[in-house]
Amino acid sequence: MATNKLSTESYKGVRDFYPEDMFIQKHIFERMRKAVEKFGYVEYGASVLEPAELYRAKSGEEIVNEQTYTFTDRGDREVTLRPEMTPTVARMVAAKRRELVFPLRWYSIPNLFRYEKPQRGRTREHWQLNVDLFGVDNIQADVEILAVAHEIMLSFGAKAGDFEIRINSRKMLEEQATKYNLTPEKAKELRLIIDKKGKMPHEEFQQKIKAIAGDNFELSQVASNDVEKVISLLKKNNIENIVFDPSIVRGFDYYTGIVFEVYDTNPENRRALFGGGRYDDLASLFDGDKIPAVGFGAGDVTIRDFLETHGLLPTYKPSAQLYIAIQDETCRESAEMLAATLRRNGTDVVLDISQKKLGDQIKIADRQKIPFVTAVGAEEVKSGAYRIKNLADGIEKILKATEISDSLKTLL
Amino acid sequence: MATNKLSTESYKGVRDFYPEDMFIQKHIFERMRKAVEKFGYVEYGASVLEPAELYRAKSGEEIVNEQTYTFTDRGDREVTLRPEMTPTVARMVAAKRRELVFPLRWYSIPNLFRYEKPQRGRTREHWQLNVDLFGVDNIQADVEILAVAHEIMLSFGAKAGDFEIRINSRKMLEEQATKYNLTPEKAKELRLIIDKKGKMPHEEFQQKIKAIAGDNFELSQVASNDVEKVISLLKKNNIENIVFDPSIVRGFDYYTGIVFEVYDTNPENRRALFGGGRYDDLASLFDGDKIPAVGFGAGDVTIRDFLETHGLLPTYKPSAQLYIAIQDETCRESAEMLAATLRRNGTDVVLDISQKKLGDQIKIADRQKIPFVTAVGAEEVKSGAYRIKNLADGIEKILKATEISDSLKTLL
Repeated sequence: MATNKLSTESYKGVRDFYPEDMFIQKHIFERMRKAVEKFGYVEYGASVLEPAELYRAKSGEEIVNEQTYTFTDRGDREVTLRPEMTPTVARMVAAKRRELVFPLRWYSIPNLFRYEKPQRGRTREHWQLNVDLFGVDNIQADVEILAVAHEIMLSFGAKAGDFEIRINSRKMLEEQATKYNLTPEKAKELRLIIDKKGKMPHEEFQQKIKAIAGDNFELSQVASNDVEKVISLLKKNNIENIVFDPSIVRGFDYYTGIVFEVYDTNPENRRALFGGGRYDDLASLFDGDKIPAVGFGAGDVTIRDFLETHGLLPTYKPSAQLYIAIQDETCRESAEMLAATLRRNGTDVVLDISQKKLGDQIKIADRQKIPFVTAVGAEEVKSGAYRIKNLADGIEKILKATEISDSLKTLL
Repeated sequence: MATNKLSTESYKGVRDFYPEDMFIQKHIFERMRKAVEKFGYVEYGASVLEPAELYRAKSGEEIVNEQTYTFTDRGDREVTLRPEMTPTVARMVAAKRRELVFPLRWYSIPNLFRYEKPQRGRTREHWQLNVDLFGVDNIQADVEILAVAHEIMLSFGAKAGDFEIRINSRKMLEEQATKYNLTPEKAKELRLIIDKKGKMPHEEFQQKIKAIAGDNFELSQVASNDVEKVISLLKKNNIENIVFDPSIVRGFDYYTGIVFEVYDTNPENRRALFGGGRYDDLASLFDGDKIPAVGFGAGDVTIRDFLETHGLLPTYKPSAQLYIAIQDETCRESAEMLAATLRRNGTDVVLDISQKKLGDQIKIADRQKIPFVTAVGAEEVKSGAYRIKNLADGIEKILKATEISDSLKTLL
């Protein structure tokens, strides 16, 4: 045995998911899946390891140089723990562009890594729902993606008043860049300032953008045609909480059309929950033509904060509905038969193996939040009737083995 | 745009999961979850990144030194991509030993990394169901864990004759080591040879073990008491396909009691599918006392091979049950309303946005394996009745919007 004891701490900036946390995580993922599958999106996946070169081309530079986990493997390959999923999905789509049947409606819930200082809403590892629609360059695709984003919020139990979609178009910014004769580098600098608009006083913002784009520069307050049209089509679909916002530009380089962010409207949590946009050029980094694409990513940490703020977190429930306690070991075989019957009938059951006193067995069930308990003793073995107790209200029901599963289904 | 095109290949030795592959992966995970939850196991999770020191103490040495992905982060911390889940779960349990309510029935389906030469059944990244029972040192815990392993196989559709559980106990080997005066190092060498018994001729095996343990050494052909008892208790629970096998020892150092492997009995795929055992000492590497534990890990790659060998792979189905084609754009609003109604009623629906010709829209549905299709045109808008076509057999049904979801539920 080692004398220097090991630390029980996880690696810095990542999370352990004990069953209660995992329950929330699974709830979030399940609602996400349900929402996107309503629109026919299918799930894909990939490894967290990617060749480092994948991120050199089109992500924001800050991300590639300072914020990734990149290392060299034993075969001298440069490997990165993916910081975002879009390059991966673009790679996968480009690799099979001839076999795949477009339009593709794809989603995934990968974990992503950023090397940054851990703080509220910012961990080194987070999970992110990625939803993408490939192969359609018309506005109906933009509308569908926004409707999916909206549906995800509703699926968590959010009301239309709890959040707001803010939308803009990169095209507007491109037009302005042309009008003010900005180089691509200047246009990018400008974008990064606009992206941080909410984080500085208005005066400072005005100074900064004029320093880059000239004293005459004003951020356009007029929505481009595509943005206007998307908003009006969504309103026809009863999605009203969408507004044009010229300060929405998004950090990544690769967007080419609409860009949007979903905002929490609660004054205590007023911030972007997630966002996305159109990126028609990314697949052309690989061999072959452009593939039009529009999509978004929604992270688990900000969603969880949102659910907490709005009282939408679910209450923990374990998988087991019933705990079978054993009054003495001579009854174990009968208890095992009962457990087998219930499991066959679709009830998840814990069978006691602690061999503790009956009261202690029931305490285990209660503290593990298993809602019902029954104790198997000589009497139950003889009669074949079991007293099923609801631990929350103490109410008991006497049932035969074959009646228990159906009864629990109606009670839960 | 870059002129040097990026490669579309994934990192070496890992897999991309296109929707068809992800469908199988999800099927495997779903069946695993269902099987273990029957016994009341609850899911936990953790990051793939762990402090490197976690693997120095108790894993086999080969694994720590040559087979892990270990690198130094920007803060000079040594980090490892977890090669197995047991040290992580032992760390998590040890960290909260005072708050947790034992016995713990925990499971997880983490991805694991090994730096090794990719070959059949051996990838650099795989997923592995980990099932563990903490806090009980009696034989009932061993029996339950083996029953869970058995249930997992049945949940995939395997018959009892398709596989076999082979069981041994580390205690038997310890007794022999004492009898033959073997040092701990020699005992370990011996174990590594026994673990590879099936991979060499019998003669060579005999030579090797005698070279380590002396000419008089014979591998015990008698099961220890605990193994005998576990087998007889499982047979009482109608689990018959379990046998004592003195060559089962498992690679990791940390096992202290029973060890077992589940074997495919098919002559074409006769090999270990997965395994585990009792490890009562692992938690004592951290501050505090021992925590008795028994568990196993079942990997996705070998399970998938098993399902393939036995014809148990599921047939791909996308999430969408119905593709709504649009005959001309004037009908889009009606088609959107139909889609909204069906989604509200629990049907997953793709609404066409390709704006292609009707025949091409139906081709998309067919090639994406969406089972039903309907086309919305002027007639349907007027009548409110929709022709729902089953693409597999061509049979059509004319239904009102409100009837479609129920009808599809019975047809699918």
